[in-house]
Amino acid sequence: MRSLAAHPAARGLNDDCAVLEVDGEALVLTHDMMAEGTHYLPGANMADVAWKLVAVNLSDLAAKGAQPLGVLLGHMLGDGDERFIEGLRQVLHEYDVPLLGGDTIAAHGPRAFGLTAIGRATHRPVPARSGAKPGDVIHLCGRIGEAMLGFEALRDSTGADSSAFRRPRPLLDEGQALAPHAHAMMDVSDGLLLDARRMAIASTCTFALDSAAIAAIAPPGRLDDAMRWGDDYALLLTAVPDASLPIATQMIGRVLPKGDSPLLLDGTPPRDGARLGYEHRFP
Amino acid sequence: MRSLAAHPAARGLNDDCAVLEVDGEALVLTHDMMAEGTHYLPGANMADVAWKLVAVNLSDLAAKGAQPLGVLLGHMLGDGDERFIEGLRQVLHEYDVPLLGGDTIAAHGPRAFGLTAIGRATHRPVPARSGAKPGDVIHLCGRIGEAMLGFEALRDSTGADSSAFRRPRPLLDEGQALAPHAHAMMDVSDGLLLDARRMAIASTCTFALDSAAIAAIAPPGRLDDAMRWGDDYALLLTAVPDASLPIATQMIGRVLPKGDSPLLLDGTPPRDGARLGYEHRFP
Repeated sequence: MRSLAAHPAARGLNDDCAVLEVDGEALVLTHDMMAEGTHYLPGANMADVAWKLVAVNLSDLAAKGAQPLGVLLGHMLGDGDERFIEGLRQVLHEYDVPLLGGDTIAAHGPRAFGLTAIGRATHRPVPARSGAKPGDVIHLCGRIGEAMLGFEALRDSTGADSSAFRRPRPLLDEGQALAPHAHAMMDVSDGLLLDARRMAIASTCTFALDSAAIAAIAPPGRLDDAMRWGDDYALLLTAVPDASLPIATQMIGRVLPKGDSPLLLDGTPPRDGARLGYEHRFP
Repeated sequence: MRSLAAHPAARGLNDDCAVLEVDGEALVLTHDMMAEGTHYLPGANMADVAWKLVAVNLSDLAAKGAQPLGVLLGHMLGDGDERFIEGLRQVLHEYDVPLLGGDTIAAHGPRAFGLTAIGRATHRPVPARSGAKPGDVIHLCGRIGEAMLGFEALRDSTGADSSAFRRPRPLLDEGQALAPHAHAMMDVSDGLLLDARRMAIASTCTFALDSAAIAAIAPPGRLDDAMRWGDDYALLLTAVPDASLPIATQMIGRVLPKGDSPLLLDGTPPRDGARLGYEHRFP
């Protein structure tokens, strides 16, 4: 497995955001890259690419209950830069986030972009994916499967709304409202089953999910696909059973003491070999 | 000119570092990208690529008198990753900087890397390239032309020392010591003449440089090339004439009120059309 994260020097890569303590303030930092051919197809509207690049990083801040302070952009020049800038302007305006700086380079071949977002935690301790405790209720804020429907609408040219795929909305207000109540929180970027499994492993617990509850926030008839699709940027969190959350969420399961499997769906581990979500790895 | 910086939404890109005020603390942020075929050649030792990627960003912090707090890496997987990680480990250890996080992606075609460095200003106001004042003396901390010699040693396989090109050293201690005395400061990443011109323009002044003084810190017989070569990461600064600097520097000129040309070399503007340094643009 060619994963840098296995190397001690690279520990922390692809994990949660970084939390940096500076004079009593907790800064939250995250960096994501997007590459042509991997994260978007050649010919994509570059305004959507810019929006998504910013939105996925802001979603990481949302999962920490952080308020964005700004972003830095790494930009490889190429076709559609006018549209890219337009999409960048739109998303920064929408979420009132300044572009602090960055770098522009000329290069050849498929393009890559990087974005760093920095925010300020609004609640301490800052929620991590490792904080779930046995007995907690598992909540999801937001829906799943919407990005999948948007992707299919684009792929099949149905004319149906594709904005959930093209222009995901980071749940910044929701994350800040939920942070004081969350034992653990993360955004569901790679698929609900995969990310729930990651949170369970990070918390040394077992997550027992209830598919009937999840079905209520998934497209009718598409539950199985929706649980394995990423790009939705819903917030997955756990809280004590009697928590009075200030935001409507769906209760989708319970946290159990660590068992044989980190993840149970209706009482049994998801089928062996079933793809749980999007893995950032080579096959 | 396909420069994003011309667009209002992208103002600040490719400029100085960003300075972010958070609760009385001045955070300094910078982001640079490096791409195969543009910033390094296919076949380069990836340990050197990793070192340089970190070092050039730390040099940006040095020019602000900032103490590094950490870095985030955007990494595209590929050949030589073991070496890349080794070089990353070395440079982070050398400068005692933690890897806070980042992203690893798989993509096709030439590789690109991004690095964000965050630091804490050790002196306020944080020196900017726009702070030079008429009457100031222009100083250079460090030498120029060493990276050029290193590049030539590699290109011509002479066996001479190429470390100045492969593994530049950010002047972090020097930057922190000089910051309280500097009206303006920046690192010379793209060539002394080009960067001096940029500082003069940002400060609305004219910089009058003295080639005899510069010759003392350039390789013998190579002054003209050395003033136009980048990658040296010396610190260019201006200070009042009677400043008592805590670090040895070379006095290379004077700041004049804004004249017809932002840059004079021995009293005359550098030849029209002469390449002053490395411009981050398409031809």
